[in-house]
Amino acid sequence: MVFLNGKFIAKNQAFVPVMDRGFLFGDGVYEVIPVYNRKLFRLDAHLNRLQESLNSVAIKSPYNVNEWLEIINQIVSYSEHDNQSIYLQITRGSGTKRAHTYNELNPNIYIESNPLHPRSQKEASEGFSAITREDIRWGRCDIKSTSLLANILYTQQAKQHSAEEAILIKNNKVTEGATSNVFLITGGTLYTHPTGTEILSGITRDLILESANSCDIIIKENAFTIDDMLSGDEVWISSSTREVIPITKVDHNLINNGEVGEHWKRVYKHYHKLTN
Amino acid sequence: MVFLNGKFIAKNQAFVPVMDRGFLFGDGVYEVIPVYNRKLFRLDAHLNRLQESLNSVAIKSPYNVNEWLEIINQIVSYSEHDNQSIYLQITRGSGTKRAHTYNELNPNIYIESNPLHPRSQKEASEGFSAITREDIRWGRCDIKSTSLLANILYTQQAKQHSAEEAILIKNNKVTEGATSNVFLITGGTLYTHPTGTEILSGITRDLILESANSCDIIIKENAFTIDDMLSGDEVWISSSTREVIPITKVDHNLINNGEVGEHWKRVYKHYHKLTN
Repeated sequence: MVFLNGKFIAKNQAFVPVMDRGFLFGDGVYEVIPVYNRKLFRLDAHLNRLQESLNSVAIKSPYNVNEWLEIINQIVSYSEHDNQSIYLQITRGSGTKRAHTYNELNPNIYIESNPLHPRSQKEASEGFSAITREDIRWGRCDIKSTSLLANILYTQQAKQHSAEEAILIKNNKVTEGATSNVFLITGGTLYTHPTGTEILSGITRDLILESANSCDIIIKENAFTIDDMLSGDEVWISSSTREVIPITKVDHNLINNGEVGEHWKRVYKHYHKLTN
Repeated sequence: MVFLNGKFIAKNQAFVPVMDRGFLFGDGVYEVIPVYNRKLFRLDAHLNRLQESLNSVAIKSPYNVNEWLEIINQIVSYSEHDNQSIYLQITRGSGTKRAHTYNELNPNIYIESNPLHPRSQKEASEGFSAITREDIRWGRCDIKSTSLLANILYTQQAKQHSAEEAILIKNNKVTEGATSNVFLITGGTLYTHPTGTEILSGITRDLILESANSCDIIIKENAFTIDDMLSGDEVWISSSTREVIPITKVDHNLINNGEVGEHWKRVYKHYHKLTN
């Protein structure tokens, strides 16, 4: 069962009009909310970010927090899985004609649940590879919008290279991954790109910083270069569905001789304390 | 009547699955083809550009040129209007699950016709205003993709300022409009941003250059600055639905004291020879 514009229906019955502005223009925003043991994880942070995305593109939230909670919990209850990933998309709505400009419309809202299967510690401990690509995305990467073609092209290239992620480089600095935030440990200090318009301020990113802080790791929200990354001790990526996983190879370069580092193990462990 | 995935149906019956990648990711491309006197105008150029867009995002064209021609002509025939604007959108297709990466899918194809009502010469001759905005779009503006959120935000801002267009500025140079190409006449020479990844190589842009050439205007496909524009003699924008119209005010600055220039009148006239 999925949610579409007020109704709970079968996914294969869920259709939107061709005049939906998400379909025509990528004119919408989305959120992905993890569920552990049937409980929504950091829901407030996700709903806050959703509201920020909506504000940035001037779409009025169709529901208040309690209404969201009720709808999302119902979607959670329809699933047989204890751990889930809730996908929630809001587009500006459907006009009568295709026009770039708009008058006020009723947003179209779609919500679905998928099983959440992050890798086990054993799987994650094997390390993953990434490719690097020039970051040519637009200047408002802080908005979690559905205009995602750049990200699609990057992730498909990563897949073609049997890589877990495409790490994006802007003016020689690592911004983030195509679908993740990126962290570097070097000399015992954790570096990650500061928030702003160049990255999506990941909620999992915040949890990793919270975990690293609890593990007494010094945190610097400073951008680092591709050379810093290649000569660093540990590289990680984070996202709500992957949690935090170590990258041990970037393009053709091994990070830390391809070994997963000790800092990751501690932060991974702490992160799992938070989700349990 | 519209065309959706092989069927001609009423527009209010045209729906796409929520798993359509256009809806989820802006993962699609489009074309807008003008029709004058029931004849498709510069169809080859439009189908060529469509093919380039498809190639850039690795979507396989579902039809060959003759098949497109047959479908589009049928859409033209259903309309009561002699002059039309054909909108054609192709998304990568619908997967079973939302995932950034994809395996081969059947593209979803949507085509509709709208009446083409460019402004009359009298209306156009009154001149229009534009606003300027920093060009923060991605680095592949040559792809006519449906990930258009930046363009949507720009055009809505133009509307809020009662302006015809938002003219975009990157590194102090005019790239193009949010939904048009931009031209400057200064000292009798026509300037416009060269083709490449920073602008969409408009087919109407080519026709304007063709017309200007026929009017013995010197053409330089060089980028010009915002100051060049403000101190220039004439500024025009072009798009397939607006053809070529003069901009006489940019932000709070009058161009040529707010007067429509003589070069525009000649080029406008020649353009209409081409479309008749």
